[in-house]
Amino acid sequence: MAGFRDLGFARVDTDRERRQGAPEAILAEGKAPEEIAAIARAMLDDGAASVLVTRADDDARAALRSVAPDALEDARARLAWVARDVPEACGLVTIVSGGTSDLPVVTEARVRAELLGTSVVVHQDAGVAGLHRLEPAIEDLERADCVVVVAGQDAALASVVGGLVAAPVIGVPTSIGYGAAFGGMTALLSMLCSCAAGVAVVNIDDGLGAGTIAARIARAAGGGA
Amino acid sequence: MAGFRDLGFARVDTDRERRQGAPEAILAEGKAPEEIAAIARAMLDDGAASVLVTRADDDARAALRSVAPDALEDARARLAWVARDVPEACGLVTIVSGGTSDLPVVTEARVRAELLGTSVVVHQDAGVAGLHRLEPAIEDLERADCVVVVAGQDAALASVVGGLVAAPVIGVPTSIGYGAAFGGMTALLSMLCSCAAGVAVVNIDDGLGAGTIAARIARAAGGGA
Amino acid sequence: MAGFRDLGFARVDTDRERRQGAPEAILAEGKAPEEIAAIARAMLDDGAASVLVTRADDDARAALRSVAPDALEDARARLAWVARDVPEACGLVTIVSGGTSDLPVVTEARVRAELLGTSVVVHQDAGVAGLHRLEPAIEDLERADCVVVVAGQDAALASVVGGLVAAPVIGVPTSIGYGAAFGGMTALLSMLCSCAAGVAVVNIDDGLGAGTIAARIARAAGGGA
Amino acid sequence: MAGFRDLGFARVDTDRERRQGAPEAILAEGKAPEEIAAIARAMLDDGAASVLVTRADDDARAALRSVAPDALEDARARLAWVARDVPEACGLVTIVSGGTSDLPVVTEARVRAELLGTSVVVHQDAGVAGLHRLEPAIEDLERADCVVVVAGQDAALASVVGGLVAAPVIGVPTSIGYGAAFGGMTALLSMLCSCAAGVAVVNIDDGLGAGTIAARIARAAGGGA
Amino acid sequence: MAGFRDLGFARVDTDRERRQGAPEAILAEGKAPEEIAAIARAMLDDGAASVLVTRADDDARAALRSVAPDALEDARARLAWVARDVPEACGLVTIVSGGTSDLPVVTEARVRAELLGTSVVVHQDAGVAGLHRLEPAIEDLERADCVVVVAGQDAALASVVGGLVAAPVIGVPTSIGYGAAFGGMTALLSMLCSCAAGVAVVNIDDGLGAGTIAARIARAAGGGA
Amino acid sequence: MAGFRDLGFARVDTDRERRQGAPEAILAEGKAPEEIAAIARAMLDDGAASVLVTRADDDARAALRSVAPDALEDARARLAWVARDVPEACGLVTIVSGGTSDLPVVTEARVRAELLGTSVVVHQDAGVAGLHRLEPAIEDLERADCVVVVAGQDAALASVVGGLVAAPVIGVPTSIGYGAAFGGMTALLSMLCSCAAGVAVVNIDDGLGAGTIAARIARAAGGGA
Amino acid sequence: MAGFRDLGFARVDTDRERRQGAPEAILAEGKAPEEIAAIARAMLDDGAASVLVTRADDDARAALRSVAPDALEDARARLAWVARDVPEACGLVTIVSGGTSDLPVVTEARVRAELLGTSVVVHQDAGVAGLHRLEPAIEDLERADCVVVVAGQDAALASVVGGLVAAPVIGVPTSIGYGAAFGGMTALLSMLCSCAAGVAVVNIDDGLGAGTIAARIARAAGGGA
Amino acid sequence: MAGFRDLGFARVDTDRERRQGAPEAILAEGKAPEEIAAIARAMLDDGAASVLVTRADDDARAALRSVAPDALEDARARLAWVARDVPEACGLVTIVSGGTSDLPVVTEARVRAELLGTSVVVHQDAGVAGLHRLEPAIEDLERADCVVVVAGQDAALASVVGGLVAAPVIGVPTSIGYGAAFGGMTALLSMLCSCAAGVAVVNIDDGLGAGTIAARIARAAGGGA
Repeated sequence: MAGFRDLGFARVDTDRERRQGAPEAILAEGKAPEEIAAIARAMLDDGAASVLVTRADDDARAALRSVAPDALEDARARLAWVARDVPEACGLVTIVSGGTSDLPVVTEARVRAELLGTSVVVHQDAGVAGLHRLEPAIEDLERADCVVVVAGQDAALASVVGGLVAAPVIGVPTSIGYGAAFGGMTALLSMLCSCAAGVAVVNIDDGLGAGTIAARIARAAGGGA
Repeated sequence: MAGFRDLGFARVDTDRERRQGAPEAILAEGKAPEEIAAIARAMLDDGAASVLVTRADDDARAALRSVAPDALEDARARLAWVARDVPEACGLVTIVSGGTSDLPVVTEARVRAELLGTSVVVHQDAGVAGLHRLEPAIEDLERADCVVVVAGQDAALASVVGGLVAAPVIGVPTSIGYGAAFGGMTALLSMLCSCAAGVAVVNIDDGLGAGTIAARIARAAGGGA
Repeated sequence: MAGFRDLGFARVDTDRERRQGAPEAILAEGKAPEEIAAIARAMLDDGAASVLVTRADDDARAALRSVAPDALEDARARLAWVARDVPEACGLVTIVSGGTSDLPVVTEARVRAELLGTSVVVHQDAGVAGLHRLEPAIEDLERADCVVVVAGQDAALASVVGGLVAAPVIGVPTSIGYGAAFGGMTALLSMLCSCAAGVAVVNIDDGLGAGTIAARIARAAGGGA
Repeated sequence: MAGFRDLGFARVDTDRERRQGAPEAILAEGKAPEEIAAIARAMLDDGAASVLVTRADDDARAALRSVAPDALEDARARLAWVARDVPEACGLVTIVSGGTSDLPVVTEARVRAELLGTSVVVHQDAGVAGLHRLEPAIEDLERADCVVVVAGQDAALASVVGGLVAAPVIGVPTSIGYGAAFGGMTALLSMLCSCAAGVAVVNIDDGLGAGTIAARIARAAGGGA
Repeated sequence: MAGFRDLGFARVDTDRERRQGAPEAILAEGKAPEEIAAIARAMLDDGAASVLVTRADDDARAALRSVAPDALEDARARLAWVARDVPEACGLVTIVSGGTSDLPVVTEARVRAELLGTSVVVHQDAGVAGLHRLEPAIEDLERADCVVVVAGQDAALASVVGGLVAAPVIGVPTSIGYGAAFGGMTALLSMLCSCAAGVAVVNIDDGLGAGTIAARIARAAGGGA
Repeated sequence: MAGFRDLGFARVDTDRERRQGAPEAILAEGKAPEEIAAIARAMLDDGAASVLVTRADDDARAALRSVAPDALEDARARLAWVARDVPEACGLVTIVSGGTSDLPVVTEARVRAELLGTSVVVHQDAGVAGLHRLEPAIEDLERADCVVVVAGQDAALASVVGGLVAAPVIGVPTSIGYGAAFGGMTALLSMLCSCAAGVAVVNIDDGLGAGTIAARIARAAGGGA
Repeated sequence: MAGFRDLGFARVDTDRERRQGAPEAILAEGKAPEEIAAIARAMLDDGAASVLVTRADDDARAALRSVAPDALEDARARLAWVARDVPEACGLVTIVSGGTSDLPVVTEARVRAELLGTSVVVHQDAGVAGLHRLEPAIEDLERADCVVVVAGQDAALASVVGGLVAAPVIGVPTSIGYGAAFGGMTALLSMLCSCAAGVAVVNIDDGLGAGTIAARIARAAGGGA
Repeated sequence: MAGFRDLGFARVDTDRERRQGAPEAILAEGKAPEEIAAIARAMLDDGAASVLVTRADDDARAALRSVAPDALEDARARLAWVARDVPEACGLVTIVSGGTSDLPVVTEARVRAELLGTSVVVHQDAGVAGLHRLEPAIEDLERADCVVVVAGQDAALASVVGGLVAAPVIGVPTSIGYGAAFGGMTALLSMLCSCAAGVAVVNIDDGLGAGTIAARIARAAGGGA
């Protein structure tokens, strides 16, 4: 039993969901639409609970629809996805973002976490330059099983939130900002050096990674893993 | 109610343990021994469950012993700590490391996680260049509530473990290696780009941060938070 | 005897094949189509065994066809080539890649190695996040005279393969990945720091370089140099 | 009239205080004690209001005392200074720091600003991970003519303060922190990308520069320039 | 009293002008035109003295005009703004630039400072390679309450001006230049290392930040804060 | 006497040619065509010996022609220039380049040096990978008053030439190459670390700078300055 | 069958020699002398053909002697080794270095290659700034089965040699040089961008890695693998 | 005729002085005292006009004295040298430095240029923050055949001087400065981006390289080459 499907150009890891509780996601960049369609079909044929295509332009999203008419999509977040057999939601993930422009990354994290079976609440534009805007989020931060902070520029929100909550905090640096923001490098370094112990970080703009680990943490805390 | 003790040179956040379940740790670098002793005394007077001094040279460790005769220490890991009222262990953290030289960072993560109230098992020197050496760790990886991977150089172990387990994985890049290892920068970047979704990363050699978030994740999963 | 052809804008090293067993390749970037055609014609007139144009857009590939109607091409890999007097294949090069998106680099390495007179087998999408997908490649890895690992992101595949095989391993970091992948820099550094001794690395996306050295190694091992 | 004293090895800009209101400071690093003494003597002979030696080890501080018995010093901040004709204090500079280890930089900024004729108040260890510790500083922040934020690691304090106050904010990144703090580079980039408009930044650990510009700002606002 | 308006996708900090004397600016990048219009409308409804949209392409500028027919704009500087209740000008800001290509950044700084209630004079193209071109600016530099230096490449103008004037100097590195200018990084580092004490620096091309802090400094010095 | 022409948006340094023997060059990037035309006209009205516009697209080159019908141009090198009163040639500059793709930079250096009054000979595509191709250049290298080496990638040609000739050597790193060439950074660093003492380097792709200093050196050596 | 020896602090990969033809090497940095001795003893007990300790200070070398009285050592290269059952030499490795200071790295590569069963000849100080010094090496370069180039600074020797020989070339950048040599980074980048196709590179100062892959290549070419 | 002396560990390029007019210099770092002595003896035996040892600690300088009792030295500049048959001085090199701490690099450049047969005048501490200090140097700058600018931090002096003089300008960035000076990197980048065309740059702290090329330029201009 190989545990994968060999499509020639790709070896689809159909065993991953069984092994790790989360199906492989399809990164659209660098793949032809036919390849995306073929991978999605292989996953669905093998009974994947969900399929998620990231960094997906119009053609990539159409490719998913061509094999799954029930596919949903979000153009701004460059996402397309199919929800077939999503586990019942268990555990709460609270996502806070620093600014309006972080929305696509927030969406990627939210959709992934929901597809893996958690509840998600979102508070946007709660940047540190006006701390009072964080107040409406406090209650949702305190009852969260996992908190995701999405922020660019100096990413100071990660430390502020990281100093407030008892739940694990996952930081997602975003490529927002110009000049010395260096495409998210500054936000990344800043989060890694957070003065609040207990913050862990994923790659720049990596909503997928944040959604994946947050769902794992929240479901286990909620008794669902 | 201020929620902190003002020592003049420092404002000790004595409220943090109540707020976040984990007391402040004392980074010894840049502090005089008297300062370390004073901060530790303030924390113990306020009923801290534990006190942990990191990056502690001989003088720094002696400073802790001077205010807490029951202090323990580990010279190679540059650690000193006092365990006064540690919560009953709940949840399991499994730590795997890539090489023998990662030991000090492993120790820092292990001690912190234990002081916060988790069980910890350690598998050292399971580097990817001889994958069969990872086999004895498989069972402990599968039953873990949180996995911590400590590795330097190319840190490939993070992706290998990240592709095997269902638990959340926290990566700790270490400054081990020479030349293009660039003091841990390569291991850090490598872990951030892990091809296994669901790996989150802390700062280079940051055993403290890894132990903190791992304990939060494991305790909640174990029903203990 | 000059050992080169002076075209004014270029001095074509027609002696290189005699001297080193491999003709010069033509990097299309920064050259006008007429220049590419003139260089290719000079090489063919001097009896080059093969001509290979890399980073070739539509015009560059057409330029080669204009002087060699028997030219072949691969648009996705941006390659065009002519095989006139290729040495009989001798020695085996096995190429493994981490993901579907590495295909263009795999193709560049494969074509170059074949033009220099080796047999090549390819295993794609054998990334470390699902190690079982590497199993079908094991036999070809063990019988190879030289192994080429093509991988982006954290390039962990290089260490895994480098710890398994007895043949020399050449790593090719690719520019695949986003955020902290930094256009292949992370994969490059990671491969250089591989914990498996005996891995050597070429430039980012440099299929040409990998194919060249792999063919030299494999042909000599196969008794053909 | 040259406007400087030529000592052969140095041309002391004795005109600077008249021109810019602040005498030249003496960076001790790279200078022999005799050179430091000679420069200080030339400044005092020309009627400098004050002399400040920075990055001064024991020998450098002794060199200043040898020409000015009224010299003061601070070993931890590596400073020595003479106050001869300091202008009456005018305007208020409030300095806040993120942690205990930032003390030497705080001291350098405070001494310089005082020597140039301002009042200075200091609030130390008000890091973002425990925001309530900033509360005692609020009143001094609101009445300040210029605010200086001294912080290392992620330097998130700059944005928090920068979003609260109406006065100009000068950030001083410090080299505190390990791993991805990269000797203050992360704090520097973070402050430059502060989401609070109106924060300007000086070099890493540059208390001197911060004290200089802060004094100019505060004195003018206080009606004293 | 929340102190902000919650538009769902954004929480507009309508309290900022009262708190800090300067309304929030709208960074157009990453925002849809409807979002820009909605934020501008919320600010104007709340009585903002001015609205400024930066990095604004044609659509973004049209969005502002759609809610404020009295909006002005500058296409080359990618700016649009509305002046409703600008404070009477108080204090003088003098801006000098190194070259003709720095104009857009100069404009952004000038407009922002004027909207916050200062007088501004501009001297362009006074680069160090022909120092005599700086002479016509001397008088305006000497009477300024705050000086802004806008320069790319080696940004040497910051040190030259910083060594001449008694007022605080704010440097704005620009992304002008090629090769080793590295998109403004060199100018940024150069300004941070200025041999003239008392220069503080904002982000690359950050005319907004420079205009904000310069206006604060100048108004206070002019008796107007 | 100002020594410059103030056009409002620019202060043209018309004194520079008298002062330094070389008129200002006009960098087209970031300037409007009208601005280029106005600057060129001011220079010609003041009797400039030549005008050179670099990084000039079609519009920029047309702008020069509109004020100087005798303008010449080279589209591939993005240059336009007018030669009005060029000094009689004196001294010899020999330019060697590593590859065909370095041609635009070679042209920029050659035109500038000729406009300043030197003879120039060029040897292209003499890269180190086939050292015999350098032989035809030896005689021109030995009789040169100044040598300019234009090379990308590893720029090894600078050391080879730098170890052969007695004349001063100016290196120009080019942005040719992919992957770890990092837009010319590698060639720049390599030339700076040349094991041949006596090589000095200008900015990446900076043919203008190389042509300027080479002409000064060669004219003086030829007795012409 | 585990295939390794578990010493608690280390899992010695005693299967590696069987699997890959080369025993594990012991990196002394970060290991206590007792640990080095224990690992060496385990390897010898399992019948390792050789044991090599790298980056070994006095204590580390003494540790090896304590378990193997027949150990040899080289203090300058910080090496100690035991040769027990070295395979008969097969194939030729030719090492050339750029300068006298590269000797320790040359030695590390030579000893490793000899312990794995090859003949090695060395030509030192053949730097490019005096190319005639390479002539005595030509014959050994032409008859080599694998060439290793050890060079720091601009590492131009790699391209010169890479353009001459038909054998595979392995480059070892060294940390020799100051200033912009950046601890070997410049040499590393330069070798990766070599204009000679067919050069592959190992980590900075990594004589061990170069010796390992060179021996594999040479033995196979010599008919010995 | 080999043109070099083979000492086993080194191949001394005794032909270099004949070929290039300047003998090889001996970089002491990484060489044993005996090696330095042997190389110096070989050079002197072959009739070198001078021998110069750079980066020379006490032992290295003693090594030169042991073979040449007439050796001179400068401990602060870490130099030792022997002048045997120095050509009559021809041409003038003017060196200006930005600060007192640049002295060792100034000395290295001065000694080298004098040994190669030029006159040298030095103006120290003429930094841009007090431009009037440059005035005493103007005359020597105008009559120079080559100007060398030695400066750290922002190295703005290179552009100021580069905009004043008609002679070729060679910049030497120094590692002086802290924080964002990054060991001379900022000064290096700044000089490369100088807004004054005609400045060429050598490696950080590379007085030797600057002295070499400056002497070549000045001697030729003075009619002496």
